[in-house]
Amino acid sequence: MPVVTLITDFGVGDPYVAMMKGRILSVDPGIKCIDITHDIEVGDIESASFLLLKSYKYFPEDSVHLAIVDPTVGGSRRAIFSQFQNHLFVGPDNGVLSPFLSRTYRINKNTDLDPKTFEGRDIFAPVAAYLAIGKEVKHLGVRIYDPVKIELSKPRMIDSTLIGEIIYIDHFGNLISNINEDILPSSDIEIEIKGKKIEGLSRNYEEGKNKGLLALINGGFGLLEVALYKGNAALYTGCKKGEKIAIRRKDE
Amino acid sequence: MPVVTLITDFGVGDPYVAMMKGRILSVDPGIKCIDITHDIEVGDIESASFLLLKSYKYFPEDSVHLAIVDPTVGGSRRAIFSQFQNHLFVGPDNGVLSPFLSRTYRINKNTDLDPKTFEGRDIFAPVAAYLAIGKEVKHLGVRIYDPVKIELSKPRMIDSTLIGEIIYIDHFGNLISNINEDILPSSDIEIEIKGKKIEGLSRNYEEGKNKGLLALINGGFGLLEVALYKGNAALYTGCKKGEKIAIRRKDE
Amino acid sequence: MPVVTLITDFGVGDPYVAMMKGRILSVDPGIKCIDITHDIEVGDIESASFLLLKSYKYFPEDSVHLAIVDPTVGGSRRAIFSQFQNHLFVGPDNGVLSPFLSRTYRINKNTDLDPKTFEGRDIFAPVAAYLAIGKEVKHLGVRIYDPVKIELSKPRMIDSTLIGEIIYIDHFGNLISNINEDILPSSDIEIEIKGKKIEGLSRNYEEGKNKGLLALINGGFGLLEVALYKGNAALYTGCKKGEKIAIRRKDE
Repeated sequence: MPVVTLITDFGVGDPYVAMMKGRILSVDPGIKCIDITHDIEVGDIESASFLLLKSYKYFPEDSVHLAIVDPTVGGSRRAIFSQFQNHLFVGPDNGVLSPFLSRTYRINKNTDLDPKTFEGRDIFAPVAAYLAIGKEVKHLGVRIYDPVKIELSKPRMIDSTLIGEIIYIDHFGNLISNINEDILPSSDIEIEIKGKKIEGLSRNYEEGKNKGLLALINGGFGLLEVALYKGNAALYTGCKKGEKIAIRRKDE
Repeated sequence: MPVVTLITDFGVGDPYVAMMKGRILSVDPGIKCIDITHDIEVGDIESASFLLLKSYKYFPEDSVHLAIVDPTVGGSRRAIFSQFQNHLFVGPDNGVLSPFLSRTYRINKNTDLDPKTFEGRDIFAPVAAYLAIGKEVKHLGVRIYDPVKIELSKPRMIDSTLIGEIIYIDHFGNLISNINEDILPSSDIEIEIKGKKIEGLSRNYEEGKNKGLLALINGGFGLLEVALYKGNAALYTGCKKGEKIAIRRKDE
Repeated sequence: MPVVTLITDFGVGDPYVAMMKGRILSVDPGIKCIDITHDIEVGDIESASFLLLKSYKYFPEDSVHLAIVDPTVGGSRRAIFSQFQNHLFVGPDNGVLSPFLSRTYRINKNTDLDPKTFEGRDIFAPVAAYLAIGKEVKHLGVRIYDPVKIELSKPRMIDSTLIGEIIYIDHFGNLISNINEDILPSSDIEIEIKGKKIEGLSRNYEEGKNKGLLALINGGFGLLEVALYKGNAALYTGCKKGEKIAIRRKDE
C-alpha cells in the first residue's frame, strides 16, 4: 500500500492540507496519507528540511515525502522531485529538499499557470500520488543538476571546544542542538549553554532528577539536547533557536 | 476504497473525533477517514459550510462528507444526508450542508434518544459509514424537501463599485473575500480595504515584493484575497471577518 | 484491516508521532493509524488513561491502542502490553494503561538500551504493529502480575449528598465530572458547583437556553457535565479540573 507523507507550514485550521489529500486519493484511493507536521513556522524552510531528514527513514521504502514550505509559490522557482535512498521527495526548488537531492527532476508543468492554481494541490499532490503508485519518473519530470541547496548549520571545533547551536525546540521544551552523538568526545564532558554548566551526559531524563538542567542524546533526533526532568528547558533557560552551546572535555 | 471526510468544531484535544472514526471503522475498517479540519470556531456553521464547499470536489466521487457544527445538538433539529454531484453529505439540519441540498434525506432515528447519545458518534458516523460502503439511501432515510438553508454573503454592485467582504482569514493571514474571480472586471482595477488602496491584481505573492499589500486570486479558494508578501495581511491591516472590500475599474 | 490508535502527550508540531507511524507502516503498510489525541497535557497520565478508557470501545475488536505519556521514559519502568475485552493496549508501565490490565505482559527488550533509542518509535510502535497483525503475544512479552495501577478519582456519598469532582474540561468548556449517569438519583436533583446551583438535569443543550448553567449527561463520556448553552461553562464559572460538584435529591 503506497504511502505519501506530508510536511507543510499550512497549519490544520484551513482546508489546504485536505485538498491535497483529496487530490492524492483521486489518483488512487488506496494511497496512505500520513502527516509529519503542518506546524512548521510560516516560511521556515530549514526546519521543514531538518524534520523531514530526521523522519523519512522510518517510513517504508518507496514512500513519497511531500514537503511544502513555499514562500515564493507561484513565482519562477521550479517544482521538483528527487530520489534518495529508495525514497521519493516532492516539493518546491527552494532548498526544502536539500538533504535529498542526489537525483533530482524538474516537474513538467505549464509555465503559464492559471492564477487559480494552488500548486500544492494541483501540481505537487498529483505528482506525489503518481510517484507513489509507481509511475515512471521520466513521465513526470526531466533530470536537472542545479537544484537549490541550503546548508543546515554545523558545529565547529574552536581550540578544544566544540561549538554548536540549538536548532530545534520541541513540544516538551527540550533544546535540541546540531551536535550529532557521533562527534561527542567519549571522555567526560562539560556542557555550557547561556551561562549555565552541565556536567556529563545523562542516559535518560530520570537520571536528571534533582539535577536541574541535564544533557542527553535525544532519541528522536540522535542529537545532543538540553532538558529539564519533568520540566521545560526552553522556558527555564529562556533559550531560543540559534542559542550557542559549548562542549569541553573535562580533563582539560 | 471508500472515503469519509470530517469537518467539525470539536478540536483535536478531546477524543470526540476519534470516537466517530472508531464507529466508522467498526462498520468497515477499510474506510478511509480524512480530516478536513476540526478547528472551525465553535458554532460557526457558515465557515464549515464554506470550507466544505471549497474542498469536497477534490475528493474522489462517492466520497461521504461528514460536517458537524451543531450548537443545538440533541434538540429537535433533524439529522440529514444529501446527494450532490456524486458526493454524499451528512450532518445536522441547521444549514451547515446548505450548498449541497439538491436531494436531501432525513436520517431514520429514534426520536426519543437516550440522553447518553452523542449524535456525531452514534448517528452521523454510522450513517456516513453505511453510505460510504454503498448502502442504499432508502434504508437510511426518507426524502425531505424543506431542509434548513443559510445563504453565504454575496458581493453587490453599487454604482460601478463591487462591494464584497472578507469571509475567511487563513493561517497565513491572507484576507479571503467572497468575490469570485469570474466576476472581477477584466480591465485594470483598484481595490480598497480599510482605507488602504491596492493597484491591480498580482499574479503571485512574489510580484508583491516591496509593494506592501497585494491583491490576487487565492488558488485554494478561487476567490479574491488581500495578502502581504512574506507577511500577515490580517495582522498588518487589523482586518477581521466581515470587513468590506471595494473593487473599482481604474478607467472610471 | 488492522487498526492502531495513538494517544500521547507529544503534540503534533514535532515529528515524533509521524516517526512512530512510519515504524508501524514499516511492519505492515496496511495498518490503519488513528489519532485519539496528542494534546494530553505533558505528563498527565490520568487524563490519557481516562480518555482512552472512554474511547477504545468504539473501535473494532482486535484494535491495538498505543498510549504514551511517559515522563520517566528511558528509566527503569517496564514497557508493557495487555489484553482487555478483545482489544490490545501498549504503553509504559506507569499506570497509563490502568483500566486495561486484566492480562498484562512485559515487552521483551534489551535492558541496556542504546541512548539514541526513542522507545515510542523503537519499542512501542513495532510491538503495537506486530500485535495488530496478529503476532502471538508469547513472542512479544512475558506475563506479569504486578503492573503499576493508578485509581481515577471516584465520587463519594456524604450524608445524602453525592460529592464528585470535575475530571475533564473539553474544547467547548463543558465541565465533565466523575459522576456516572448510573449512580444519579432518579428523582429530582439539585446540583451545586462553585457556589452556583442548578435545578435538575436537562436532556440537551437547547433545553438550557436562557437558563444559565445547565447540567446534563455528556453523550461522549456518559458522565454528568455542567455546560452553558452556546457558551463556555469553564470560562463562565472559572472552574478548573478538581473542582468539587455536589448532587442532592430535591425532596430532602
